[in-house]
Amino acid sequence: MNEMTRLIFPEAREIIRSGNVADLGVLMGVLLPPDVADLMAELAPDESAAMFKALDNKQRAEVFEQIDYEHQQALLDRLGPQVIAGVLDSMSSDDRADFVRRLDARSRETLLPLLAHAERHDLKRLLAFAEGTAGSVMSTEYATVEPEMTALQAIEHLRHVAPLQETIYIVYVVDKERHVVGVVSLRQLIVAAPAATVSKLMRREIISVKGDAPREEAANLIAKYDFLALPVVDETGRMIGIITQDDVIDIIKAKATQDAQKAGGMEALELSYFDTSLPAMLRKRGGWLIVLFIGQTFTATAMESFEGAIQKAAVLSLFVPLVISSGGNTGSQAASLIIRSLAVGEVKLADWWRVARREVASGLALGVGLGLLGFLRIVLWPNAGAEYGEHYVRLGLMMWLALMGIVLWGTLAGSLMPLLMKRIGLDPATASTPFVATLVDVTGILIYFSVATLMLSGTLL
Amino acid sequence: MNEMTRLIFPEAREIIRSGNVADLGVLMGVLLPPDVADLMAELAPDESAAMFKALDNKQRAEVFEQIDYEHQQALLDRLGPQVIAGVLDSMSSDDRADFVRRLDARSRETLLPLLAHAERHDLKRLLAFAEGTAGSVMSTEYATVEPEMTALQAIEHLRHVAPLQETIYIVYVVDKERHVVGVVSLRQLIVAAPAATVSKLMRREIISVKGDAPREEAANLIAKYDFLALPVVDETGRMIGIITQDDVIDIIKAKATQDAQKAGGMEALELSYFDTSLPAMLRKRGGWLIVLFIGQTFTATAMESFEGAIQKAAVLSLFVPLVISSGGNTGSQAASLIIRSLAVGEVKLADWWRVARREVASGLALGVGLGLLGFLRIVLWPNAGAEYGEHYVRLGLMMWLALMGIVLWGTLAGSLMPLLMKRIGLDPATASTPFVATLVDVTGILIYFSVATLMLSGTLL
Repeated sequence: MNEMTRLIFPEAREIIRSGNVADLGVLMGVLLPPDVADLMAELAPDESAAMFKALDNKQRAEVFEQIDYEHQQALLDRLGPQVIAGVLDSMSSDDRADFVRRLDARSRETLLPLLAHAERHDLKRLLAFAEGTAGSVMSTEYATVEPEMTALQAIEHLRHVAPLQETIYIVYVVDKERHVVGVVSLRQLIVAAPAATVSKLMRREIISVKGDAPREEAANLIAKYDFLALPVVDETGRMIGIITQDDVIDIIKAKATQDAQKAGGMEALELSYFDTSLPAMLRKRGGWLIVLFIGQTFTATAMESFEGAIQKAAVLSLFVPLVISSGGNTGSQAASLIIRSLAVGEVKLADWWRVARREVASGLALGVGLGLLGFLRIVLWPNAGAEYGEHYVRLGLMMWLALMGIVLWGTLAGSLMPLLMKRIGLDPATASTPFVATLVDVTGILIYFSVATLMLSGTLL
Repeated sequence: MNEMTRLIFPEAREIIRSGNVADLGVLMGVLLPPDVADLMAELAPDESAAMFKALDNKQRAEVFEQIDYEHQQALLDRLGPQVIAGVLDSMSSDDRADFVRRLDARSRETLLPLLAHAERHDLKRLLAFAEGTAGSVMSTEYATVEPEMTALQAIEHLRHVAPLQETIYIVYVVDKERHVVGVVSLRQLIVAAPAATVSKLMRREIISVKGDAPREEAANLIAKYDFLALPVVDETGRMIGIITQDDVIDIIKAKATQDAQKAGGMEALELSYFDTSLPAMLRKRGGWLIVLFIGQTFTATAMESFEGAIQKAAVLSLFVPLVISSGGNTGSQAASLIIRSLAVGEVKLADWWRVARREVASGLALGVGLGLLGFLRIVLWPNAGAEYGEHYVRLGLMMWLALMGIVLWGTLAGSLMPLLMKRIGLDPATASTPFVATLVDVTGILIYFSVATLMLSGTLL
């Protein structure tokens, strides 16, 4: 809720309770649809429905596009399918499809027959595209002009179709088979001489995306070329919709959410946190946890092979969590850094050698520093001699060396694992923080006890 | 490099080597500036400079906006300040400022006097805004109209100023003091009756952002309201620039990068991976590593207090990494999930109780499952009796119980820590994966050995 909504909120609630429709009209004139949506989210369900009912159909559609699914469903329950069908008819095609895609079969069967014919037909085409495809986020309301129109005629045409279109700023020139043969902007049309023909003005090199391509492909093209909109075509190249810059913002946000979830060592959720059911949540989290747990059982196996050393010097086991987590932490940092750099294209597969060189340098510097801290932790401990035995300085030096090795290894493993994943065709994000930490934990134990065996034989061991 | 660039690349290289400017002109007609930038990135520095030189000034500016800083700097070195100053004059104000902001003092001093007066003045104003502010990413090329103009006059005016402006689709109505009093879209102007005045058409409720506000604030407003552009104002409310949807895409991407880096347990970098110097990189990574290391030393302290138990039953120490990492992994998952949900607004501070309830349910289910795996790992191990002693089933049950407790605790700590951070006014992203893992490691050791002491006293202990 932003500041404006917060200021207006108490008054709005009063107006709704009093049922004064005229005052509500004034209120709506001041607020933009996203503000009305904010306001409704804060109201009790019945108040929210009353407020929604007081809007005209255009406002209803704009507000309905802005509220979350849980809230849309509540309005459907309260106001009935007839009212909501009217709202759906006025909504933009992509938001309408978003809503209907999530309805259960029974609600769909009740709602769909109530829609206007054109909208129902349009909806069916959009629903045919799987979630996550360009087709599933496109809008079917786009403006087209003919190549032989003059700039003046094209503007006159746009003037008439404007109320129906998602945008009139980017206009497509299509032939009889709806193949895109050109693209022209309203800016070009306005600046041009009125008698200039569209075919003279239009750009003929068309960049488009297939309807069944991943939506991220469309987002990347729009971001790269700074397009306001991108045409979506079917397998035969016929234009079927457009994706606009504001869709890209949603796509990029959703992608960043999925990447963050993967980085945390789980599968990406399809819905928001609260919209995800508990069984679905457990599946998304449990699968990776089991894999990681099985990976971690190798730490026990690794420790077992050094059980003799631990029995001789229990003190060695005290530092195992500290030592291996240092490798895990540096590995996590490096992995997060490289995964994201790969995602935004700052680092490419071909850069692996440059990355490795940089990370060796970083790993060595960080390892020397953390190793020093480990050394100090042991030798400066109050009464270190009594706690760790007479060889405590030697123990400290062993820690230093082991930490250097483990931190260097963690940095290298963390930075190169995402590149390796990409190389073998897997999503680099699979090299998640917990995944790298697990890998480095197991190898860290081997490094630690090997260094210990080497340096402490004849003293502690 | 996309497919088109890849196809054209060999031919382009030939043309550049042959120095045939006419052919190069044809090539440029087919490629969009981002494609030329892609192509140049793949060429040798001298070839790239030759290609750049063959472009006209407008093309040069568009391409220069698309290439990365390292490459821009290389062109400056090869083509000299005079050529690049000409390019800067033709660039959009925000991209020009981006480039100059990163130049060292000497290059700035050489370049700035070569710029046209208006551009130099404009640049100085933009450079006054700190990096990360709305002012630092705004463009100063925006269109304004007067309230008494008719729609026809406004369109005619836009027609003339179009070549200079970042966008003419959203137009601001400003008074004599440059306060924004209204906003009108070209769509509205086109659809309106030609004689309708701007003051009749314009929307008077203006949403704007201050120049020194964080750029994310502007991005959030544009994303929320689906605006094509947002006005930027100074402290007195005077309009000084606009931020457009394509800026928002960049801002959201940069923010996601910073969040990913924080999630990996490091400070966010200001520059890209390769542009960050080694000392800067070590600072950003080393600081948190030291904090985490100090946190992890408590694992050693915790282990020390159970040293007696370890000496009696070394077998207990074998499972410490496995057990605590299970807590760390579930905690990492929960933290990543909640941090991101907070960032996109799906979860709010007020939801903490709903989150806690859900996570207790998830944590219990995951704990029972992972605990079962831990139990099986011990009792089904070949020759478990010899390896873990006669009480190995009891040891297995202890593992099950300890894992349940630790996983439940990890889930709760991981999910509630970001909410706590937010509550006390810190960035929730500070509850990074390694941070939560460290916290859960230390407490995990306490839980594990407490359960062990409770269940194994009289048998192993």
